[in-house]
Amino acid sequence: MRSDSIDTVLEVRLRHEPGTLALVAGAIAEKKGLLCEIETIRILDEYTHREITIETTSADQIAAIIAAIQSIEGAQVISTRDRVMEAHQGGKLRVSSRLPLKTNRDLRTIYTPGVAQVVRAIQADPALAWTKTWRGRSVGIFSDGSRVLGLGDVGPLASLPVMEGKAVLYAELAKLDAVPIVLAVGSPQEFIETVVRASPGFAGIHLEDIRSPDCFLIEAHLRERLHKPVFHDDQHGTATAVLAALINAAKAVGLALDFARIGVIGLGAAGTAIAALVGRYGVGQVLACDPNPEASARGVAVGACLVDLETLLAQAHVVIAATGVPGLIKPEQIQRGQIVFALSNPGPEVEPKLALAAGAALASDGRAINNALAFPALMRAAIETRTRAITSDMMIVAAQTIAEQAEPGALVPSPLDTNLHDAIAHAVARCVVAAGAVDTARP
Amino acid sequence: MRSDSIDTVLEVRLRHEPGTLALVAGAIAEKKGLLCEIETIRILDEYTHREITIETTSADQIAAIIAAIQSIEGAQVISTRDRVMEAHQGGKLRVSSRLPLKTNRDLRTIYTPGVAQVVRAIQADPALAWTKTWRGRSVGIFSDGSRVLGLGDVGPLASLPVMEGKAVLYAELAKLDAVPIVLAVGSPQEFIETVVRASPGFAGIHLEDIRSPDCFLIEAHLRERLHKPVFHDDQHGTATAVLAALINAAKAVGLALDFARIGVIGLGAAGTAIAALVGRYGVGQVLACDPNPEASARGVAVGACLVDLETLLAQAHVVIAATGVPGLIKPEQIQRGQIVFALSNPGPEVEPKLALAAGAALASDGRAINNALAFPALMRAAIETRTRAITSDMMIVAAQTIAEQAEPGALVPSPLDTNLHDAIAHAVARCVVAAGAVDTARP
Repeated sequence: MRSDSIDTVLEVRLRHEPGTLALVAGAIAEKKGLLCEIETIRILDEYTHREITIETTSADQIAAIIAAIQSIEGAQVISTRDRVMEAHQGGKLRVSSRLPLKTNRDLRTIYTPGVAQVVRAIQADPALAWTKTWRGRSVGIFSDGSRVLGLGDVGPLASLPVMEGKAVLYAELAKLDAVPIVLAVGSPQEFIETVVRASPGFAGIHLEDIRSPDCFLIEAHLRERLHKPVFHDDQHGTATAVLAALINAAKAVGLALDFARIGVIGLGAAGTAIAALVGRYGVGQVLACDPNPEASARGVAVGACLVDLETLLAQAHVVIAATGVPGLIKPEQIQRGQIVFALSNPGPEVEPKLALAAGAALASDGRAINNALAFPALMRAAIETRTRAITSDMMIVAAQTIAEQAEPGALVPSPLDTNLHDAIAHAVARCVVAAGAVDTARP
Repeated sequence: MRSDSIDTVLEVRLRHEPGTLALVAGAIAEKKGLLCEIETIRILDEYTHREITIETTSADQIAAIIAAIQSIEGAQVISTRDRVMEAHQGGKLRVSSRLPLKTNRDLRTIYTPGVAQVVRAIQADPALAWTKTWRGRSVGIFSDGSRVLGLGDVGPLASLPVMEGKAVLYAELAKLDAVPIVLAVGSPQEFIETVVRASPGFAGIHLEDIRSPDCFLIEAHLRERLHKPVFHDDQHGTATAVLAALINAAKAVGLALDFARIGVIGLGAAGTAIAALVGRYGVGQVLACDPNPEASARGVAVGACLVDLETLLAQAHVVIAATGVPGLIKPEQIQRGQIVFALSNPGPEVEPKLALAAGAALASDGRAINNALAFPALMRAAIETRTRAITSDMMIVAAQTIAEQAEPGALVPSPLDTNLHDAIAHAVARCVVAAGAVDTARP
């Protein structure tokens, strides 16, 4: 599934005759559609109805596929459905009560007058909010929608489906109660003020899809002012997942990371955080390049050695590109034995198969290296230990645990692996305890 | 259950002997505890273990009750539990996914890359957010905790249990997804700015427990700036529930409201809104009094005729007190045949039974007249019709429907009546349609 893909479900009526389905599959392939699930939904005397899920990149392509199927003897498209749009009907989140509300006593427990007692208790001892409200599990997901996926500045409202998706991942993977709060703000300063003011009810703050360089300023100020975990996923979630993949990639090709040169191309949110985290992890040297002077300064600030793109590609043992520029790296620039992570979506800087053909030892793109591996358990561990910040050391422990949990031969595990997030959260929590950073007095 | 009450569950071991339980009940009564549920949890050869729920007003009273029970031959208190605090363990809300997250395809539908398609669709047509995100059901509950219940300014964090309670009522009574956002703000202007910036993802804005007069300024500005339903429950929820009770009270005693004088004592959030709404409903005359000049000016602005307290009590057919001053009204000031609603919590301006003994035709206090009757369905109807504001006419229709749904002889129905909120929402939605105020283009 490409990041610009459309999942379409065609309901197709096929005559019972050997080969009809093969013809349909051929027609889809001819129009470059990707054939996914085939499900039989109805068997009649002469016909079978099947739902065929196909992936395409445009509405025109779907139309061409439908026309091709219609022209097959014995095949007919009955209806089409857009799977993703259909799944989003009504949104993705539900807020519900953890307590029954059936009797008058329930009402008087949940609401007035009973609740007054809980209010007074928290007023007397604010730490009780950790256990007597959702404050022990709540995450505010804040975005202004200024840099959403590969789509750019779509504004707050259109970014809401992404934030709901993050909240779903928090709920399902880390049992945290996360809510999307999309912001209409005119400056980083307004963003900061708004989050500070809206923060008292949240145990953790998740920042998402904010344009660079605003995201750096916003995160730095919020960390300083809130003294509670503030996590910009596009930076740190990405960096943690990339470090996990890097650890396994180096192992697979026999590269000793403590002597390796890691080249980071592009110093936006992701690239800067990757350069900082792999440096902190302890690699031989971090090289970096970015045509933007402000971005370059960020690279220096996190300890990277600035070089030009050609030098970086010629010298780095590992090339990590996060530029948003598809095709930036020419296959002939790849060195024999290099590890190449071309992370940009929807189109990577170099297609992994072209990089491999050009001599790379290992190549991957952004699809496999998923933030969802990292952010849910990092936030959960930070909240459960009541520590004040998510540190680089916590991210490194998370990355190491992610790397350990991968199947042999895989760079990273599936984010849907049910034991994965528990394992990360436990490892990170141990790291917080070892650092003496548990702080039950934190706000 | 008084509004300052504590629900305590005593586990008591009682010898099998007739009369032991009666002695325990007597001991509780002697110490003025209110005996609620008795549940048998274990039957042994010689003893029975029972959980006895009692209501008290202080920890001292509980200690006295326990001592009294311990002194009874054959009775022993094994343990005590605080029911309300126990029920609040872990908070009252849960955020969960409406979609399954089991397969890789689920992940790619909910999150990237699938979600990009939904983002693009909403970017092209913002109205799609109504159906493709939780935006068609979402309510932001905003409070600064500056005037919580009868407890005053407890601050944002301690107000959270109340806001969670409101969210529970929205979920259970109106199937809306409401989230508490408690604000640390220094001025009404900061409150307004914060809500405006955080509002894009919410279909409706619920304001709660904000000190007067800030609440008026905040509500007025937000209504003007947001063009979406903004509902200050302490004003309008209360006024709607009171109007419902007033309609039924007048019917019960044979008072013609269109010729009646309604006296409102106290022009804070509740009193001002009550004066405005009963005036708009169309009563003979609204009298009002408040020692504060600014409050008095608000009374004039909503059409009330200012009088002093004595004149009001002497002349009003209906006395509605919302002052926060327990015992303000002396029984001898009550006129024969008056209707008296003494709304303040925890102590009413005059105890209903004293008012009745002094000649009132009907008397009630704030416990029966519950905002939960009004706000869930009003917000639901406003959101479902996509109207821009919750108007007085909508509140009047809600009040009339609440009044109609009461059992014969009761002032109002139970807020837990399962048909009630549907009935209110349908009636209010018809009112919006009739007024031509459905607006599918609303933000």
